[in-house]
Amino acid sequence: MSKVIWKPGTFIYPLPVVMVSCGTMEKSNIITVAWTGIINSEKPMCYISVRKERYSHDIIEKSKEFVINLTNKDLVYATDWCGVKTGAKIDKFKEMKLDKEKSKFVKCPSIKQSPVSIECKVKEIKNLESHDMFIAEILSIDADEKYINEKGAFDITKCNLITYANGKYFALGKVLGKFGYSVQKKSRNSKKK
Amino acid sequence: MSKVIWKPGTFIYPLPVVMVSCGTMEKSNIITVAWTGIINSEKPMCYISVRKERYSHDIIEKSKEFVINLTNKDLVYATDWCGVKTGAKIDKFKEMKLDKEKSKFVKCPSIKQSPVSIECKVKEIKNLESHDMFIAEILSIDADEKYINEKGAFDITKCNLITYANGKYFALGKVLGKFGYSVQKKSRNSKKK
Repeated sequence: MSKVIWKPGTFIYPLPVVMVSCGTMEKSNIITVAWTGIINSEKPMCYISVRKERYSHDIIEKSKEFVINLTNKDLVYATDWCGVKTGAKIDKFKEMKLDKEKSKFVKCPSIKQSPVSIECKVKEIKNLESHDMFIAEILSIDADEKYINEKGAFDITKCNLITYANGKYFALGKVLGKFGYSVQKKSRNSKKK
Repeated sequence: MSKVIWKPGTFIYPLPVVMVSCGTMEKSNIITVAWTGIINSEKPMCYISVRKERYSHDIIEKSKEFVINLTNKDLVYATDWCGVKTGAKIDKFKEMKLDKEKSKFVKCPSIKQSPVSIECKVKEIKNLESHDMFIAEILSIDADEKYINEKGAFDITKCNLITYANGKYFALGKVLGKFGYSVQKKSRNSKKK
């Protein structure tokens, strides 16, 4: 075997690293989370796992709402900072010069500077050991108009998303292929070549 | 508001795109999954969500075991192919020229070509609408020795991981920062500059 057995650990990478906003327009907080993902497609459902002692944990537990804000190159510093600081005594929106925007379906603000904000309604809280898992329904995808191209499609290559792997934030690099490319028939043009 | 309200959708990106191996050394299958992530840190727990009609779904439901194999640039084609093809009548290991390696704690093989394989034991199956969510304990992280540096640390920048966002596979790009960099004091050297 060419592989070394390590102890069990949380080694699924690369992961999204999102800024979760919670609370209300008046009293809100931001927590950065990498333990997040999609769990169901129809209807769209996701989760975030949050340590029980985090300041945002109780806010989300009570309000049963949060907004997932995707992060990009311009937001790396704020993403890191909102992950290591506690919002108990500071206003993270103010400190990081982030703007609040009203959501349509939840009371929590979204972050204006984020390219895509995902409004979520908690359906179940699953008590695990270090973390609680907030299982949620996705109510709305709020996308910054500037990334929507002339065909009405969201151009994800334009918004400079970032990803997290083993303690580091990475930019996204080259596009290596499209979903399904391995089974697509070559076009006439490429056949001629 | 600068954002446009879209209908709800599964728009958390970028995501890991992993090859999940299941079954036994003799009769195994591979399914590519992006609906995966960490849900608890201590003890380490993760999930994969799989459509109920997929061939791997029943295998994992019965055996209660699977292995998450991280993917890299060399595996993009196989990653895409294993996501669109069904293993009902084909041997995906053979077709994609992937080698099986014995796992330590589960009966499923891991994929030798993957830089990191994560052995998982299903603890709960959560029935959602389109997907079932397999909630699992991480039993072992099996890492390819060639990515472990002279200090005994896994060098994630060396293994060319890939990520998935809105229908496209991306290489990882530049490192933008380390976890906690926003609150680190500058070293004496950098202060002098």
